[in-house]
Amino acid sequence: MKIGILGTGMVGSTIGSKLIALGHEVRLGSRTADNEKAAAWATAAGPKASHGTFADAAAFGEIAWNCTQGAASLEVVRGAGSANLKGKVLVDVSNPLDFSKGMPPTLFTGSSDSLGEQLQRELPETKVVKALNTINCNVMVDPARVNGGDHDTFVSGNDAGAKGKVVEILRGFGWKNVIDLGDITTSRGTESYLMLWLRLWGALGTPDFNVKIVR
Amino acid sequence: MKIGILGTGMVGSTIGSKLIALGHEVRLGSRTADNEKAAAWATAAGPKASHGTFADAAAFGEIAWNCTQGAASLEVVRGAGSANLKGKVLVDVSNPLDFSKGMPPTLFTGSSDSLGEQLQRELPETKVVKALNTINCNVMVDPARVNGGDHDTFVSGNDAGAKGKVVEILRGFGWKNVIDLGDITTSRGTESYLMLWLRLWGALGTPDFNVKIVR
Repeated sequence: MKIGILGTGMVGSTIGSKLIALGHEVRLGSRTADNEKAAAWATAAGPKASHGTFADAAAFGEIAWNCTQGAASLEVVRGAGSANLKGKVLVDVSNPLDFSKGMPPTLFTGSSDSLGEQLQRELPETKVVKALNTINCNVMVDPARVNGGDHDTFVSGNDAGAKGKVVEILRGFGWKNVIDLGDITTSRGTESYLMLWLRLWGALGTPDFNVKIVR
Repeated sequence: MKIGILGTGMVGSTIGSKLIALGHEVRLGSRTADNEKAAAWATAAGPKASHGTFADAAAFGEIAWNCTQGAASLEVVRGAGSANLKGKVLVDVSNPLDFSKGMPPTLFTGSSDSLGEQLQRELPETKVVKALNTINCNVMVDPARVNGGDHDTFVSGNDAGAKGKVVEILRGFGWKNVIDLGDITTSRGTESYLMLWLRLWGALGTPDFNVKIVR
């Protein structure tokens, strides 16, 4: 499958490399077409990897991933262009973290909105699916590195078919347990959880952890 | 031990009954001394149970629990009286849920504050310990009803000795895994998690669940 990734940071390049390893063609998008990090990634990742602007990546992908920092995400998808994302699935792994007041960050959305919803409102003809935003990027693409892969991740979105496509990709990453929380408003749940995730990171001293939902 | 409980709802009476079962003396406090629910609870719970006003319960306890609704908690501890809580541990199990805009609720504290911190600021000479606010009250007092008791709960507070006392009580409830998240500001983490807890409740169809932190 052709996949566009918005964002050339650690999350975008880690997910991009995993998708390449799984046989997909990936175009990494950044603000400018000549981003050095993106070029270096594409060279290292081989013939199925390419890079370009946000709009190039969005147009290239049958499916797109938002791997940009939360504070930039709305501006990035505007730059990518709603026409380039129309009718497609946008997997949103970002979090609405506001670092402007120091550490620990707060949520710039408050608890009555979420970045997932903001992106869905910005792109009404795109199917936004929130996913993987509750774990470190190394765990996102290799769940087996935590508890033998026995732990949970979540999807939120308004379109059942779109969530199904994302769950299929997650299964390819090695995820056994994916909980469908409901529509895109349930992004408020997983984004708010970041406030606990950050404190757990501090208490545990490692980002290599996750939650397993037990009954 | 003599324990005062602020709040006569399901959480307060459930915790009160558990503490009685463990051999403690418990006074349940409410807005008025003649609260019918509190009187009925005390009659049913036996000779170690009593009831009175918030101030009565706070004065009675060597340790106190805040089991009131989040939106009322500050007013309740003001009613209980800072002098009656001075030098004592206050275990805060409440959550800052705002139901005024409909369901699902939002957090009236935002993500740059927490109810745990608000209570600590209100009662500077009391040692506030946030605990058990991430689970249903039936699971709070009987962790074995979920996954054989193998899952996690959290404490947040500025005083290590106070957290130690609370952890001891939690062990009496059956909790094996208690993670110390740090100072009272880490309440922001467990309170924000409620936004996910509520969505998980919806997705799982039962409040009898919890998270197990896995590495």
